[in-house]
Amino acid sequence: MSLLAVGSVAFDDLETPFGCRVHALGGSATYFSLSASRFHPVRIVAVVGDDFGPDQMRVFEGRPIDLTGLSRAKGLSFRWKGSYGYDLNEAKTLATDLNVFADFHPDLPPTYRESPYLFLGNIDPVLQLDVVRQMATRPKWIALDTMNYWIKGARPALESVLKEVDILLVNDAEVRELTQEHSLIKAYRKIQALGPRILLVKRGEFGVVLFTPDGIFAAPAYPLEDVFDPTGAGDTFAGGFLGYLASIERTDVTALKHAALVGSVMASFTVEQFSTERLEQISQDELRNRLSLFSDMIRVEDL
Amino acid sequence: MSLLAVGSVAFDDLETPFGCRVHALGGSATYFSLSASRFHPVRIVAVVGDDFGPDQMRVFEGRPIDLTGLSRAKGLSFRWKGSYGYDLNEAKTLATDLNVFADFHPDLPPTYRESPYLFLGNIDPVLQLDVVRQMATRPKWIALDTMNYWIKGARPALESVLKEVDILLVNDAEVRELTQEHSLIKAYRKIQALGPRILLVKRGEFGVVLFTPDGIFAAPAYPLEDVFDPTGAGDTFAGGFLGYLASIERTDVTALKHAALVGSVMASFTVEQFSTERLEQISQDELRNRLSLFSDMIRVEDL
Repeated sequence: MSLLAVGSVAFDDLETPFGCRVHALGGSATYFSLSASRFHPVRIVAVVGDDFGPDQMRVFEGRPIDLTGLSRAKGLSFRWKGSYGYDLNEAKTLATDLNVFADFHPDLPPTYRESPYLFLGNIDPVLQLDVVRQMATRPKWIALDTMNYWIKGARPALESVLKEVDILLVNDAEVRELTQEHSLIKAYRKIQALGPRILLVKRGEFGVVLFTPDGIFAAPAYPLEDVFDPTGAGDTFAGGFLGYLASIERTDVTALKHAALVGSVMASFTVEQFSTERLEQISQDELRNRLSLFSDMIRVEDL
Repeated sequence: MSLLAVGSVAFDDLETPFGCRVHALGGSATYFSLSASRFHPVRIVAVVGDDFGPDQMRVFEGRPIDLTGLSRAKGLSFRWKGSYGYDLNEAKTLATDLNVFADFHPDLPPTYRESPYLFLGNIDPVLQLDVVRQMATRPKWIALDTMNYWIKGARPALESVLKEVDILLVNDAEVRELTQEHSLIKAYRKIQALGPRILLVKRGEFGVVLFTPDGIFAAPAYPLEDVFDPTGAGDTFAGGFLGYLASIERTDVTALKHAALVGSVMASFTVEQFSTERLEQISQDELRNRLSLFSDMIRVEDL
């Protein structure tokens, strides 16, 4: 049993009002796998360059993360350079150097092709579809993340891959652009017509809204004393959400609600430090405590 | 037993992507009292002009709303002209004509001076303090709403009145400006030092966060198919929240959580139509149904 994840493994140069980090470990598959592997074994498909050394590899060690599908190419790894102002909700992209990622064509190792769960991280929908087609058996569920760049620029390919998808994870602006609907309730109906039966809308510091055929669930974000660096929060959420779902082998509405809480709590750790620093260090007790505090915080007795 | 509310009773000229209304009933005390009076008798202190006629008065009739303190002055009523784009979260103020409100000095009728609950709507903090001083007995609780205009321009007066306040209702930007803290947890500690022991942060379509000495509670907004006009949502929330609290004579954390749900549901009705059109028409069944749907939507079993 494994959760297969395709995405980026990369370096980030980050600047926030609270400091900066250069050459920090980043990438969607990095955050995703560090988060998801707390709950379920993960297999990564991604590419790195010559600059990706033992220091970076060490972060994945000792965790149930299979790196067979992490290929190496000549050149530099994908690098993202971004900054945040005091409103930490929005990143300003200063540079995106695709490097070895520009020629990335995911090639699934044979052992990967029967993975029962699949997460298609935010990459070109043509590649996402290619991964789906390489699977020997149809996964129990397929989840997908995307962004406005692909919604605007690669819509036909995105619509093709969405037909194969069960769970769509996007933010407010993305779901509104994809459906041309402001109301999320109406947007969800259009998403269902495109393929996914479950829609998870990420709202940063405002939490998430989950749409399922059996009802809507909305939860705030876990409130923090200090947010240092929001990079990777969405991918960490996705990792916790999907890793937890894979671990319990259910996608009913109760399971999905719990998974949303787990994802939110995992993301709350990530943003407390730069890069993956905090995410690497979460103890079982810390995770359990915060989940319990969070449950208390949103619990309300019947009126 | 009554909840005394000071604020504006006014006319609004509104434009949204879904239509417009000219000379529509508006004002903070209007929305507040129509909402709060579903749960507890309300007394209004406000001023209107010659243009405020029987059509407007009729809206308040047949409800437990005491208008003894609604004074009439020569001239036009307060008028606000605003528009909203597709992002209905932010109003663009096109004009604010204070008219008779410019010389408003609340003068409490003798019967009002022993009201056990007091809501100071968003007006000049000098006037808010004046109302507090006119009370013959200290209310069981005092709640206050304010805005950036007063935080920036009348801070000493605002700090004086905050010393008397138990419950502060503001939005994200206001609490951050007032405390110079981005983290709401840190902001709450500074608010407590200024006076209020309870902080309710309004976040529009993202719901509310409640800070109490016994814990934090966060709830999303009630998701709607269609939002036509967000005007009055905050005042409707405050009315439902405080009217419910007054009705149950408690301010423990469970009571506050329930009050936040009631306020959110009341606000969800207001925004479905222009002005007070929907708020005037809510049946007991509709209210009960939506409260029950909302409770289901945020309920999650223990993990």
